[in-house]
Amino acid sequence: MTDTGDPAPPILDVPIGIAATGTRRESDSLGEVEVPADRYWGAQTQRSLKHFAIGRDRMPKEVYHAYGYVKKAAAAVNTKAARLPAWQGGLIGRVCDEVIGGALDTEFPLYVFQTGSGTQSNMNVNEVIANRCIQLVGGTLGTKRPVHPNDHVNMGQSSNDTFPTAMHIAAYSMTTDRTLPALRRLRDAIQDKASRWADVVKIGRTHLEDATPLTAGQEWSGYAGALDDAIDEAEHATAGLLKLAMGGTAVGTGLNAPPGFGAEVAAELASMTGAPFTTAPNKFAAQGTLDAMVRGHAGLKAVAVTLFKIANDLRWLGSGPRTGLHELILPANEPGSSIMPGKVNPTQAEAMLMVAVQVIAADVAVTMGGAEGNFELNAFRPVLISNYLHSALIMADMCDHFRQYMIEGAELNRARLAENIDRSVMMVTALSPLIGYDRASIIAHHAIDHDLTLKQAALANGVGEELFDRVVDPLALTRGGSADMSSTPRTAGGDPRQ
Amino acid sequence: MTDTGDPAPPILDVPIGIAATGTRRESDSLGEVEVPADRYWGAQTQRSLKHFAIGRDRMPKEVYHAYGYVKKAAAAVNTKAARLPAWQGGLIGRVCDEVIGGALDTEFPLYVFQTGSGTQSNMNVNEVIANRCIQLVGGTLGTKRPVHPNDHVNMGQSSNDTFPTAMHIAAYSMTTDRTLPALRRLRDAIQDKASRWADVVKIGRTHLEDATPLTAGQEWSGYAGALDDAIDEAEHATAGLLKLAMGGTAVGTGLNAPPGFGAEVAAELASMTGAPFTTAPNKFAAQGTLDAMVRGHAGLKAVAVTLFKIANDLRWLGSGPRTGLHELILPANEPGSSIMPGKVNPTQAEAMLMVAVQVIAADVAVTMGGAEGNFELNAFRPVLISNYLHSALIMADMCDHFRQYMIEGAELNRARLAENIDRSVMMVTALSPLIGYDRASIIAHHAIDHDLTLKQAALANGVGEELFDRVVDPLALTRGGSADMSSTPRTAGGDPRQ
Amino acid sequence: MTDTGDPAPPILDVPIGIAATGTRRESDSLGEVEVPADRYWGAQTQRSLKHFAIGRDRMPKEVYHAYGYVKKAAAAVNTKAARLPAWQGGLIGRVCDEVIGGALDTEFPLYVFQTGSGTQSNMNVNEVIANRCIQLVGGTLGTKRPVHPNDHVNMGQSSNDTFPTAMHIAAYSMTTDRTLPALRRLRDAIQDKASRWADVVKIGRTHLEDATPLTAGQEWSGYAGALDDAIDEAEHATAGLLKLAMGGTAVGTGLNAPPGFGAEVAAELASMTGAPFTTAPNKFAAQGTLDAMVRGHAGLKAVAVTLFKIANDLRWLGSGPRTGLHELILPANEPGSSIMPGKVNPTQAEAMLMVAVQVIAADVAVTMGGAEGNFELNAFRPVLISNYLHSALIMADMCDHFRQYMIEGAELNRARLAENIDRSVMMVTALSPLIGYDRASIIAHHAIDHDLTLKQAALANGVGEELFDRVVDPLALTRGGSADMSSTPRTAGGDPRQ
Amino acid sequence: MTDTGDPAPPILDVPIGIAATGTRRESDSLGEVEVPADRYWGAQTQRSLKHFAIGRDRMPKEVYHAYGYVKKAAAAVNTKAARLPAWQGGLIGRVCDEVIGGALDTEFPLYVFQTGSGTQSNMNVNEVIANRCIQLVGGTLGTKRPVHPNDHVNMGQSSNDTFPTAMHIAAYSMTTDRTLPALRRLRDAIQDKASRWADVVKIGRTHLEDATPLTAGQEWSGYAGALDDAIDEAEHATAGLLKLAMGGTAVGTGLNAPPGFGAEVAAELASMTGAPFTTAPNKFAAQGTLDAMVRGHAGLKAVAVTLFKIANDLRWLGSGPRTGLHELILPANEPGSSIMPGKVNPTQAEAMLMVAVQVIAADVAVTMGGAEGNFELNAFRPVLISNYLHSALIMADMCDHFRQYMIEGAELNRARLAENIDRSVMMVTALSPLIGYDRASIIAHHAIDHDLTLKQAALANGVGEELFDRVVDPLALTRGGSADMSSTPRTAGGDPRQ
Repeated sequence: MTDTGDPAPPILDVPIGIAATGTRRESDSLGEVEVPADRYWGAQTQRSLKHFAIGRDRMPKEVYHAYGYVKKAAAAVNTKAARLPAWQGGLIGRVCDEVIGGALDTEFPLYVFQTGSGTQSNMNVNEVIANRCIQLVGGTLGTKRPVHPNDHVNMGQSSNDTFPTAMHIAAYSMTTDRTLPALRRLRDAIQDKASRWADVVKIGRTHLEDATPLTAGQEWSGYAGALDDAIDEAEHATAGLLKLAMGGTAVGTGLNAPPGFGAEVAAELASMTGAPFTTAPNKFAAQGTLDAMVRGHAGLKAVAVTLFKIANDLRWLGSGPRTGLHELILPANEPGSSIMPGKVNPTQAEAMLMVAVQVIAADVAVTMGGAEGNFELNAFRPVLISNYLHSALIMADMCDHFRQYMIEGAELNRARLAENIDRSVMMVTALSPLIGYDRASIIAHHAIDHDLTLKQAALANGVGEELFDRVVDPLALTRGGSADMSSTPRTAGGDPRQ
Repeated sequence: MTDTGDPAPPILDVPIGIAATGTRRESDSLGEVEVPADRYWGAQTQRSLKHFAIGRDRMPKEVYHAYGYVKKAAAAVNTKAARLPAWQGGLIGRVCDEVIGGALDTEFPLYVFQTGSGTQSNMNVNEVIANRCIQLVGGTLGTKRPVHPNDHVNMGQSSNDTFPTAMHIAAYSMTTDRTLPALRRLRDAIQDKASRWADVVKIGRTHLEDATPLTAGQEWSGYAGALDDAIDEAEHATAGLLKLAMGGTAVGTGLNAPPGFGAEVAAELASMTGAPFTTAPNKFAAQGTLDAMVRGHAGLKAVAVTLFKIANDLRWLGSGPRTGLHELILPANEPGSSIMPGKVNPTQAEAMLMVAVQVIAADVAVTMGGAEGNFELNAFRPVLISNYLHSALIMADMCDHFRQYMIEGAELNRARLAENIDRSVMMVTALSPLIGYDRASIIAHHAIDHDLTLKQAALANGVGEELFDRVVDPLALTRGGSADMSSTPRTAGGDPRQ
Repeated sequence: MTDTGDPAPPILDVPIGIAATGTRRESDSLGEVEVPADRYWGAQTQRSLKHFAIGRDRMPKEVYHAYGYVKKAAAAVNTKAARLPAWQGGLIGRVCDEVIGGALDTEFPLYVFQTGSGTQSNMNVNEVIANRCIQLVGGTLGTKRPVHPNDHVNMGQSSNDTFPTAMHIAAYSMTTDRTLPALRRLRDAIQDKASRWADVVKIGRTHLEDATPLTAGQEWSGYAGALDDAIDEAEHATAGLLKLAMGGTAVGTGLNAPPGFGAEVAAELASMTGAPFTTAPNKFAAQGTLDAMVRGHAGLKAVAVTLFKIANDLRWLGSGPRTGLHELILPANEPGSSIMPGKVNPTQAEAMLMVAVQVIAADVAVTMGGAEGNFELNAFRPVLISNYLHSALIMADMCDHFRQYMIEGAELNRARLAENIDRSVMMVTALSPLIGYDRASIIAHHAIDHDLTLKQAALANGVGEELFDRVVDPLALTRGGSADMSSTPRTAGGDPRQ
Repeated sequence: MTDTGDPAPPILDVPIGIAATGTRRESDSLGEVEVPADRYWGAQTQRSLKHFAIGRDRMPKEVYHAYGYVKKAAAAVNTKAARLPAWQGGLIGRVCDEVIGGALDTEFPLYVFQTGSGTQSNMNVNEVIANRCIQLVGGTLGTKRPVHPNDHVNMGQSSNDTFPTAMHIAAYSMTTDRTLPALRRLRDAIQDKASRWADVVKIGRTHLEDATPLTAGQEWSGYAGALDDAIDEAEHATAGLLKLAMGGTAVGTGLNAPPGFGAEVAAELASMTGAPFTTAPNKFAAQGTLDAMVRGHAGLKAVAVTLFKIANDLRWLGSGPRTGLHELILPANEPGSSIMPGKVNPTQAEAMLMVAVQVIAADVAVTMGGAEGNFELNAFRPVLISNYLHSALIMADMCDHFRQYMIEGAELNRARLAENIDRSVMMVTALSPLIGYDRASIIAHHAIDHDLTLKQAALANGVGEELFDRVVDPLALTRGGSADMSSTPRTAGGDPRQ
């Protein structure tokens, strides 16, 4: 309902805060409710606090910051179209800046487990903005005049389109601003090790069992390469969040929103945030499903899989110090045991493994909730955004800590690496193209059964020493190529320096 | 290291709190660390805060309250065995009471994603108790004298046995004190409806399609019955947590714990908490796995499955008001829409569905982490206890809200129930034993194809009116039995009044 | 070991099949084994059959067909490089064609639950090809002459690079040849309905509750739009499988493979299959992880989420016939009940929901297995490829059946749609911009409390009839726009005809 | 419809098999269908084959064998109550024996992904039994005379109660007959090793890092103990399947079943199978949910968690032979590599890990499907029973293979165990109660930093040699107790011999 004809009230420069005690009456379509007098929120927020005090999970503040953008953009578009008078649009926009900046964070107390549409959080935003506007023009809180939470702050909007819009903005921003950069930093730190250790030979392991050698740099280049691919996919999946539901209003038709509203709001949002948001081409899909969230989180989940593998490898490579693999010396960040003096543990890797498990589990929540849309609405939005932001945040923080407190300080145990190469039998593989798999097998079993070095066993089985020394050269074996083609140069399966 | 010979210092009655600013030096085996001067914690806590500031998840306070019991029980047993002097044991016990009561909650700031053994939280507890003890005897914080975090507070203990013990106590207590009672209250509220509506006939639905009738009471008795079974299993699974790892110390052998220590501590814990804790028969299993946690959470997960079904049914039965099933009138707790005036939504059911999804997803985290133990330790403890307590808590709170704000106020839409019975065709099933399945099928299809009532179609296909009226009696059809055995009394498949 | 100097033996035109009974001796590096005399496989296959008779899951034949391509391409490259004599390379290639075509399917009997590298299936292929080659040149089966399973068929290869290569080929082919086309056919069939029903007004539903209207075409356009996005993502994720591990051999270094082998084999594979396969840039990532499989399957999982929602909506819209929503009339493909005559159920939708659940669950297997790589090998390959192909296949078949037996024959129940529109109250939303949210709420509650139509309630609350009739025009309300902007044309949130 | 008055036809002794070619006409309420003339099935089976040819998953034969019991028990009860004439009941019972024995397996070709109630499989059974009965009395196949699939074979039954009954019987039988015994055999084989190795000292590991010693027997006793608990829970969860839905018919009320039918059929089933089946107390819960299946499978899932841990430990302990832990020597069942001669891999452990992953993933399917019941039916039955039987079967087979080919032949590498003990530093823990944690830490760090033995470092830091030798006695350290209490005997945390 456009307030036409009202003169623009003067805007007072009142700081945030309500100097009142006790309660104040607020109302909604179900009647009146007492709210704390020092709070900006209204009746619907208060009802939700009563009906949904479930556990300790509050709707993440990033959702409200994103909502600040949504309400500001909507007000701007409504103002341009003269649906809101300029003073009203500007006032709402001003308060939205307070929301975006976090200055009103404590006014958004609602729980995650609430209505599945997020309506209560949308109304929380509408109520707080309206009352803060009212305060700024010297009005009476709770009167909804001259700024009404539904008619003005929510103008042309529904929870059904604004909440998924805020979800997309919050998830996109968190992932793009925090998670992906932290992943790239981690990738770079790993690649740096790969480059430095490009020529350090070590034993390879398949099935956990001794295999042919590679360089430590090659091994770490595999971690960096795996992260490259994982980051690319996460980035791609995150980009799916750029399409916004705004403009669909209640069921996707855009009822009560002017033509072009969705596209204009998306353009405003893009301009405000710097991210290339656009309006979703089909609003029925954008509101009836949360598929872009499902796909985006699957991208994070796939990164978690990659991180799990890397962290797991590293804690094993660092195991010991006396009876483990101990090829890697990990930083000692803290005493490892309350009972065993002097113990140091791969705690950063353990935390990373747990973060990965949490993200993988969250993917099940996102997937299940994502599947449960009905008709024009998916009513599992809060559980999706809560899990999504959680995954993105813990992964971001974890990558930075893992990098800083484990990767950067990791050192090779070169003595152990050399010793392992000396003891290994699996370099017999290099002889295989020359003497055949079957004869090579006999040599390998001979070495193990008689506790001999590979060379001893090879010579005992008729391989000439010159041939052996030429073919079984550990560093050369890491460069690919085949002993029956000695004239051709060896090449690496992957260049760890890249 | 037992402090023998020290005279018992006087205990001062200093309230909790350290009147100091800036930092204080604390030390551990890796050296010195600056900690905030107004905090009780020591070097290892401070290191953990630096290395593990991952996201926003803090180790739940219930873990520390449980740890209060663990440390108190250990001190009591050590004191009885004269390993600790009485004054020292008593002092530790006194501070443990402060921990148990929550008075020191803010001194336990560590994150969930930390070392996988929980050592840092154990040391946090040891450090805080030691320093609080030191304060109470007028000592100097950080000197570890006359109470040392490792030698005295952690005497005969390791993180490896105390942390899973605290996990079990915390998880058992939360589930037993909050979750199961809330489930039982919900079950009773549902059973109350079942009893009240024992004779209200309604149409049954299978495959979402019209089926034969039952009473609303029978339908709700099914919910109550399903909850009965689910609660039983959860209770059984939770009881698996009663076996405690305490006494195994570092790797399960009990090194540095006196003989019988585990059993005695368990008995103390049982006495203190009123729960029948016992010592685990095999400490290697108790520390190398977290299987009892996995099984316990599976019990909660199975309850979530039951709750999902109930909540889903109820939101569908309440759908409408004009174009849905609308057999049930749900309480209007809040306005349902920011754009659609007068809309009321099944928000409690939606929140319940989301809680169920969250618990089901958490089960994947618990399962994966549970599978990942290695040798003498499972190092995924923090992620397990965090998810476990979260599941138990949100389920508890949700059940109470769901009951209070949805179940208790739900009413039948009797007009709609009657209308549906009148319109249904599937009561033709009752004729089947008399006229055969094939002829009954013809009648059913005839009714639907020609938009007739079942009676009209039956009569048109040669069924006598007297027979029809005798056999197709909706209420009678809810009592079981077969029309070809009219002399035998009908009995219910389940008595909704029980 | 290259067989140099042997003259090319004549190739006999022996059909597939070994006319022998009893057993034959085959050998490997562990000794001799009796194998059925009428089988081509050798010692290692026979050992695996003994050690891994786990359940009923056999390695899918698609893996072997893909392996046919791998071995053929490798032989071709080895022949070009003169590592294999032309006759030998040609002979191997000829037998590979038999493998590719399925003629040797019964010779590949191994179980899914076997060695984690897939070595046993690789050796099964090597053994069968070698013995079939031997048969074709009149040699003695089991002698490994003149074609040796390791030295010739496996030349320049390892299970560690060939098995993931075969996995990628099999998964890519199944998804691209069957799953994605079936999804597109389903999408098109849905879009066809959307176009046909573009102007049929129906009630919208959010939270399962009556909401504002949209057209049936808009609703179905949402399904088509959601599928569009889901298919795009699945296609993108599937493309990640185009990068092949071939050339990395044992640990990724390419030991025993000539330089450029991986790239050349990939080019051959691309040429043979028509799919743009290339060599993976980093072989350590390609062999140490199965990340591309994890991401690819996540694409399928996300499609399953979309399909779940569509199938669930449709079974609900078809529910009834007398007491459900019944806006949709679904084809009656079969009698629905063994006891209730004349019952018809949404069985295709139910099967689709179960397929979706299976795919979502498989994603957990793929994810967990994907996370568990160690060092230079991920040893969960068989469980990944088994689940992947299963997901791709059942989704493909299900989409075709769902389309053919449910979508294509679905009809609107226009009478019910119109009746629902007439009864709905939520079109009050359109009045809201004119009379304000609060007054509109009063009208809506008035209608429901007094069982009135919306118009009756609106007029009773002071809305003029002319205004009401102008604003509350169901079809117009599906076109977006706001009643306070009557001069601007309405536009759709999504054009269902596109 | 009871056939009263028909004289008992003579039963012919016709063997199974129909000597006919081409097709035969069968009919159901939707009309006529051509079926293969040599098959016993009827119209509804044929329709299902057409509409549900989804992938390669067929309903497991165990479901049909269980259905054989269900139909036989129902016929027996109906005959006793004279609802079926004796000849008819006896004839149906005779054919049921053929079903139970597997002689008609090929007549049950339906797919898993079919109607969610399993109706099509129930009708498949009804049709096959009816036609086989008709054959045995010389009737005409397809006439449904004198045995009608619905009126006689399905008398007093619905798919809605018989299918979950068959599910419970099949799942209970598979788990009880195959899975649990295989688990117990595995447990016993592990316990046997624990007993044999009760006194072999080895290094313990926590966080993968060196810890204090234990015996190999203690470590294995932990595996046995964990399995004990896991088996107990699985047994308990499986017992939940003993409650049967039979008697509830279409929606749980028992319509068309005589009073007491459910209890009598359950008693017959108990008598026939020897398992203590009873009738479910609430049929609405028994048919509207699949909760007992969800809980039962959770028991299997928890076992999978335990097995994962054991298999993972063992493959790590066996890793090497030269550069891994290699404390365990695992049987060499097959050559491990197609390229690396002489390689032996822990393939049984890998297969076990994959089986565990598959079972854990199946639990998600069972959970999701279990949650999706609606009103009087859960229509995800086929996907639940398919996953359940699969889990139970692969776990059973895997346990036997793992035991036979890995556990029984495993040997300790005693030289390595001794060497590790000699090199370890963590036995410093035993000194801690005497010299304090802080001083003990200094010794440990001194040893590692200067590459000394623990003894060297202890002596260098002022510990007397006599004290050291007395306290740091590896075997003694595995028996618990504390060095400051030398007068008390040490006791084990768990007695591996038990």
